[in-house]
Amino acid sequence: MVQMAELDWMTYQSRVNTKGCLIFLPVGALEQHGPHMSMNPDVLIPQAIADAVTDRLDNAMVAPPIAYGYKSQQQSGGGNHMPGTTSLDGHTLSCTIRDIIRELVRHGVRRIVLMNGHYENSMFIVEGVDLAIRDSHHNGVEDLNIMILSYWDFVGDDTIKRLYPEGFTGWDLEHGGVMETSLMMHLYPDLVDISKIIDHEPAEFPPYDMFPVDPSLTPASGTLSSAKNATPEKGEILMKVCVTGITDAVRKKFSSIPIISDPAR
Amino acid sequence: MVQMAELDWMTYQSRVNTKGCLIFLPVGALEQHGPHMSMNPDVLIPQAIADAVTDRLDNAMVAPPIAYGYKSQQQSGGGNHMPGTTSLDGHTLSCTIRDIIRELVRHGVRRIVLMNGHYENSMFIVEGVDLAIRDSHHNGVEDLNIMILSYWDFVGDDTIKRLYPEGFTGWDLEHGGVMETSLMMHLYPDLVDISKIIDHEPAEFPPYDMFPVDPSLTPASGTLSSAKNATPEKGEILMKVCVTGITDAVRKKFSSIPIISDPAR
Amino acid sequence: MVQMAELDWMTYQSRVNTKGCLIFLPVGALEQHGPHMSMNPDVLIPQAIADAVTDRLDNAMVAPPIAYGYKSQQQSGGGNHMPGTTSLDGHTLSCTIRDIIRELVRHGVRRIVLMNGHYENSMFIVEGVDLAIRDSHHNGVEDLNIMILSYWDFVGDDTIKRLYPEGFTGWDLEHGGVMETSLMMHLYPDLVDISKIIDHEPAEFPPYDMFPVDPSLTPASGTLSSAKNATPEKGEILMKVCVTGITDAVRKKFSSIPIISDPAR
Amino acid sequence: MVQMAELDWMTYQSRVNTKGCLIFLPVGALEQHGPHMSMNPDVLIPQAIADAVTDRLDNAMVAPPIAYGYKSQQQSGGGNHMPGTTSLDGHTLSCTIRDIIRELVRHGVRRIVLMNGHYENSMFIVEGVDLAIRDSHHNGVEDLNIMILSYWDFVGDDTIKRLYPEGFTGWDLEHGGVMETSLMMHLYPDLVDISKIIDHEPAEFPPYDMFPVDPSLTPASGTLSSAKNATPEKGEILMKVCVTGITDAVRKKFSSIPIISDPAR
Amino acid sequence: MVQMAELDWMTYQSRVNTKGCLIFLPVGALEQHGPHMSMNPDVLIPQAIADAVTDRLDNAMVAPPIAYGYKSQQQSGGGNHMPGTTSLDGHTLSCTIRDIIRELVRHGVRRIVLMNGHYENSMFIVEGVDLAIRDSHHNGVEDLNIMILSYWDFVGDDTIKRLYPEGFTGWDLEHGGVMETSLMMHLYPDLVDISKIIDHEPAEFPPYDMFPVDPSLTPASGTLSSAKNATPEKGEILMKVCVTGITDAVRKKFSSIPIISDPAR
Amino acid sequence: MVQMAELDWMTYQSRVNTKGCLIFLPVGALEQHGPHMSMNPDVLIPQAIADAVTDRLDNAMVAPPIAYGYKSQQQSGGGNHMPGTTSLDGHTLSCTIRDIIRELVRHGVRRIVLMNGHYENSMFIVEGVDLAIRDSHHNGVEDLNIMILSYWDFVGDDTIKRLYPEGFTGWDLEHGGVMETSLMMHLYPDLVDISKIIDHEPAEFPPYDMFPVDPSLTPASGTLSSAKNATPEKGEILMKVCVTGITDAVRKKFSSIPIISDPAR
Repeated sequence: MVQMAELDWMTYQSRVNTKGCLIFLPVGALEQHGPHMSMNPDVLIPQAIADAVTDRLDNAMVAPPIAYGYKSQQQSGGGNHMPGTTSLDGHTLSCTIRDIIRELVRHGVRRIVLMNGHYENSMFIVEGVDLAIRDSHHNGVEDLNIMILSYWDFVGDDTIKRLYPEGFTGWDLEHGGVMETSLMMHLYPDLVDISKIIDHEPAEFPPYDMFPVDPSLTPASGTLSSAKNATPEKGEILMKVCVTGITDAVRKKFSSIPIISDPAR
Repeated sequence: MVQMAELDWMTYQSRVNTKGCLIFLPVGALEQHGPHMSMNPDVLIPQAIADAVTDRLDNAMVAPPIAYGYKSQQQSGGGNHMPGTTSLDGHTLSCTIRDIIRELVRHGVRRIVLMNGHYENSMFIVEGVDLAIRDSHHNGVEDLNIMILSYWDFVGDDTIKRLYPEGFTGWDLEHGGVMETSLMMHLYPDLVDISKIIDHEPAEFPPYDMFPVDPSLTPASGTLSSAKNATPEKGEILMKVCVTGITDAVRKKFSSIPIISDPAR
Repeated sequence: MVQMAELDWMTYQSRVNTKGCLIFLPVGALEQHGPHMSMNPDVLIPQAIADAVTDRLDNAMVAPPIAYGYKSQQQSGGGNHMPGTTSLDGHTLSCTIRDIIRELVRHGVRRIVLMNGHYENSMFIVEGVDLAIRDSHHNGVEDLNIMILSYWDFVGDDTIKRLYPEGFTGWDLEHGGVMETSLMMHLYPDLVDISKIIDHEPAEFPPYDMFPVDPSLTPASGTLSSAKNATPEKGEILMKVCVTGITDAVRKKFSSIPIISDPAR
Repeated sequence: MVQMAELDWMTYQSRVNTKGCLIFLPVGALEQHGPHMSMNPDVLIPQAIADAVTDRLDNAMVAPPIAYGYKSQQQSGGGNHMPGTTSLDGHTLSCTIRDIIRELVRHGVRRIVLMNGHYENSMFIVEGVDLAIRDSHHNGVEDLNIMILSYWDFVGDDTIKRLYPEGFTGWDLEHGGVMETSLMMHLYPDLVDISKIIDHEPAEFPPYDMFPVDPSLTPASGTLSSAKNATPEKGEILMKVCVTGITDAVRKKFSSIPIISDPAR
Repeated sequence: MVQMAELDWMTYQSRVNTKGCLIFLPVGALEQHGPHMSMNPDVLIPQAIADAVTDRLDNAMVAPPIAYGYKSQQQSGGGNHMPGTTSLDGHTLSCTIRDIIRELVRHGVRRIVLMNGHYENSMFIVEGVDLAIRDSHHNGVEDLNIMILSYWDFVGDDTIKRLYPEGFTGWDLEHGGVMETSLMMHLYPDLVDISKIIDHEPAEFPPYDMFPVDPSLTPASGTLSSAKNATPEKGEILMKVCVTGITDAVRKKFSSIPIISDPAR
Repeated sequence: MVQMAELDWMTYQSRVNTKGCLIFLPVGALEQHGPHMSMNPDVLIPQAIADAVTDRLDNAMVAPPIAYGYKSQQQSGGGNHMPGTTSLDGHTLSCTIRDIIRELVRHGVRRIVLMNGHYENSMFIVEGVDLAIRDSHHNGVEDLNIMILSYWDFVGDDTIKRLYPEGFTGWDLEHGGVMETSLMMHLYPDLVDISKIIDHEPAEFPPYDMFPVDPSLTPASGTLSSAKNATPEKGEILMKVCVTGITDAVRKKFSSIPIISDPAR
């Protein structure tokens, strides 16, 4: 695994100028995830996955993650009224992504993977990427290719059945639940205290959102489903599934994109 | 049904000052929906639903819809590279929503329903609402309540089973498919030409997005699933389900919110 | 008359690719216009004119109007403190126009007419157009031509003498007066209730503006001159004059602009 | 006449804390005005008027003028394609005005006159003022009163008849014509070279605008009407009319506005 | 040392509600620092200092650092044309800081220390803080106190004489030089490779800056002075001086600021 | 000395089209400078220097100065809480600079010197210049060269020793002190009243900044060091040193930059 930030610039430059160079940019959040877990799983998990995928690729690097994300929504993260959750305005997040991509393109990078770990970020990442591609067209760069993914989209139905024998309530309600807790138990056991897990029924939400949020709809724990059934073994399985799936997707997708000889401007 | 724009201002003011006043703001898009349909279902459908719900409520009005929405995404709308699709930057859409809410609040309105008809709008509506609520706090308005909903979230599993006996592929792939086409056949038959429906397998997408979009992943029709099985009868059912569900939700939610006597600033 | 939004995308694309394609974009407002009239004349009138002009041209279409405009000014619209008037910040409006033009240009459109129906919009339309042209230069598009017009500027002195035998007080004071009311009586008689017209002397304003507005300077009706003399016949005359004048202007101006073969980017 | 910038801060503070304190903020432009005149009349003239009005008031000061304005429009300034014309984006100008007002309010100033010298600035001044008032409401300041004026609006019909015996073509076409040239000959004779005046018929424009501008519609001189009949005597008359009118307006308007004891925040 | 992100939200909330709670927010950069060092010293060093200071205070926490900073300037960082350096627009950085502070204030935090590690960030941090304080005033929060510091400002003349017996060329030229390299050797020896240090005379710059940058003025190494004399011992001394100085400053300054009982809004 | 604003546009255009044309843009502030001096030294001094340098160059002009600058900081200007100090948000200032440069480039100017007179402006000027250069690249302009300087950086150690025989406390503390006061006594004696100079020890500040500012740290005078030793003779020396140094720098730097034949777009 290669952390871009841990390279000196000459080594970095040399890697960028080598065929196939690809950068992963993890995009996370600082968000409450229940009383049993730290507030950084949305950044630690995609970073860990990016690290592992990088190990499996020829010339990939991981850029420093974006540690603050878009505002937590009640039906997918408990809501942005919760203490600890620390979020950016949407335009701030989109501009951050646009700016970082602009700089990577200036270095000569043409292959970037935005690795999202926080559901609410998705559309603001899309907007940042769209603005960056618009800018790069203005600079005459036409061979920039950017992948956006959220790691849980690589967890297939088979794995879901295996991990949730009692039934799966959907990724939205997984906030602070089995998936994230298992991954954190596997990756950062010190940041999970299973004795503090609050077992509760999955949150139930109406088919709409109210603003300001009605706090009583969020379970008192801040989690949307119970992490009771989380285990490090499930975390290992999830990690393997995501790393394998993303590695394959990246390998396949980017090998099919022609590289234009295009010195960075 | 009461169109806010069709009232004279004195009548409008009087309605705003009457207990329980509520405004629906439809948020749509101008987006291709296949060769068999006009490009405005995302604005006409939520507007029609808002009109019908308004008929069932005591003192509700429909504001002029926002006719342009956020950029179409490939996996839910075919992609923003398609001809005809005409989209706003995310920040522009959020600011539009913030501004309109600010003005409604100035009039004295405290109950607003954002009725979304275009999947990609959701998070930018959320951001606009969040900015508007922040502003209204600065003005000392503390009793503003805003509901955000997308009409398809009111179509329950029973209805889905009834309408999709052959199986349901998810709302994302419904772009230009059975749901939207049926609703348009019911509401605006002149804007649908079923002879031009292109029957095709549902689009298949990988668990990630590429930018720029690979146009070959979007079916040539621009639709993501076939509208072949669309009928006006299904549209009528959908309409009834959405109107009933939204009416009930609005009635229940807003009756439970206390009205503070709060003259508009 | 061809509504862009009512076409399917393939038909739209085909029209865009046909010689001489031109798009009208009506820009209106949601603004009080006195107790005798709905709040949407600033959007309905330019839309109706655009529709009629489109009928007289070979390959023209009307895009969905922008339904919310810039803040009403006291001396031309009664002021933005009035209930019902629902306005955007200037930057929001300019960005909306910039974004829509950017998208039309992406489709391949090179001839656009901004049809304004709300006096206060003018400069923010200009700014949106200027930003859009700057962007399109960055994309290498050099043959984009945009016309901005306000329909009342096509009402010549002869017509004014005919319609205002008792004397004309200027377009500014026409807010909710004879011109707009006559046009609405001709076009949308159901949205005018002449029994509610409040007859009053034209508003008198000092040669400056105060902010916050002194509401006592705006007539209690919200109109700036009396609509008492409005008739549907005058509306028909105005409509004919505007449609003829604008048709001629568009025909003449755009036929003289060379079409560069320029595939949309 | 008291220039705010030429005071030391303690003297300034003392004046602000004295009853009736009022600040004039001239808003100008750097814009070509024909071959016979400098490019700064739009800032020098309102500044000179503000200076003279200040002499006639008890406790008024002139803030440093804003020297760059909004983009010149063809029908009122020749167009922003002209060399020398140096303009700001609309949002930049509005934000500049908002920021300056915010600071004056912080000092304790509650009476401000925006003295405009450039037609195209008007709406962006309005927007800046609106944003500043919104901000000041958020800070609990409710007694801020701002006047916006363009000096030529104080030139009445009598003066027009006297100065334009041959007929008046409207303020728009006065760009670089008799009014501005006469005022500059009176105020800054060194900045006018009457030998370079190009005598031409008033520009004729269609009732619409094209973007990009068709440069051939702007007279080769850059002026929109001939300055041939300009004289310093006319400038003196105009100056007197404007100074008297504005002094009277300010005296009357601001004496009627109650002063709330309101320490600056 | 307490990492805010590693706490669960209930523990965090409890700490925030406890007297004297203070948050450190490190603000760094991703910037080349010569061939002998990683590109993250500007974020790792302030983070390490914040961690150590936190250990010495009763109830302090460290928020996740901002990992991307403002554009590198030639005379203090080699210039933003260098490969690897990855920077944000100024407004993006200011908005990020404003947003994070807004959220901390929402949690109830009233004491924040912005710990800067990248010279070029300073003024954009100031702007972000100013905007955040303005916002918090609008929310009625009047007891927010924010300290901004750059750690090297705590290195006094005595230490400088001790560490630079051969003479000190100023903090600007210390980019990638003795100070940063020594600190990194002490804190993160694995991220320094002293064998790659390029020994060169301090960069010499004229008393002005050119844009675009003339790359030949930046030493080929990217460092502005030689790190040859860097040692981990010097790093330890620097660390001790900074940690002690900042601890004392924070203790003294914040103990003197009264705590208003002020529940977060 | 040639004031751009005092030229007619044809003369200006002719000068721009002549080899070597260069524009100085002074960037100042409206900021308290103690009880003994006006609030405009930060704009008058760089303007005077620009004027004098222009006299010594072949084809240089001075554009109208930007009269409002970034927020005064306590350790370099007393703080932005001071009465009289009237500042812009950072983004407003950067956009102003970006816009003016964009326009000069449109005219055909390729050599611009930003002459700063207010310490706090520096980084926002840098950002404005960076944004302008980015834009000009999008327009295909590749030969734009911009110098940014603050005049005091041209005062060398020899001059400092001569002017401050009693010892020099650094440029930061020179706010309203010997340098600025001497220059104003030399250039604008009427704007200085030496009888009001408050003699005090140099301000002492901790190595950090607090927001909101603790006003007690700013000397009651608003100056950061005493102007007691200011004389017009010192002002003359400073003026000579700056004018000579800047003239030489500009001559040398710009003669070495090749002129590409590049008609303005």
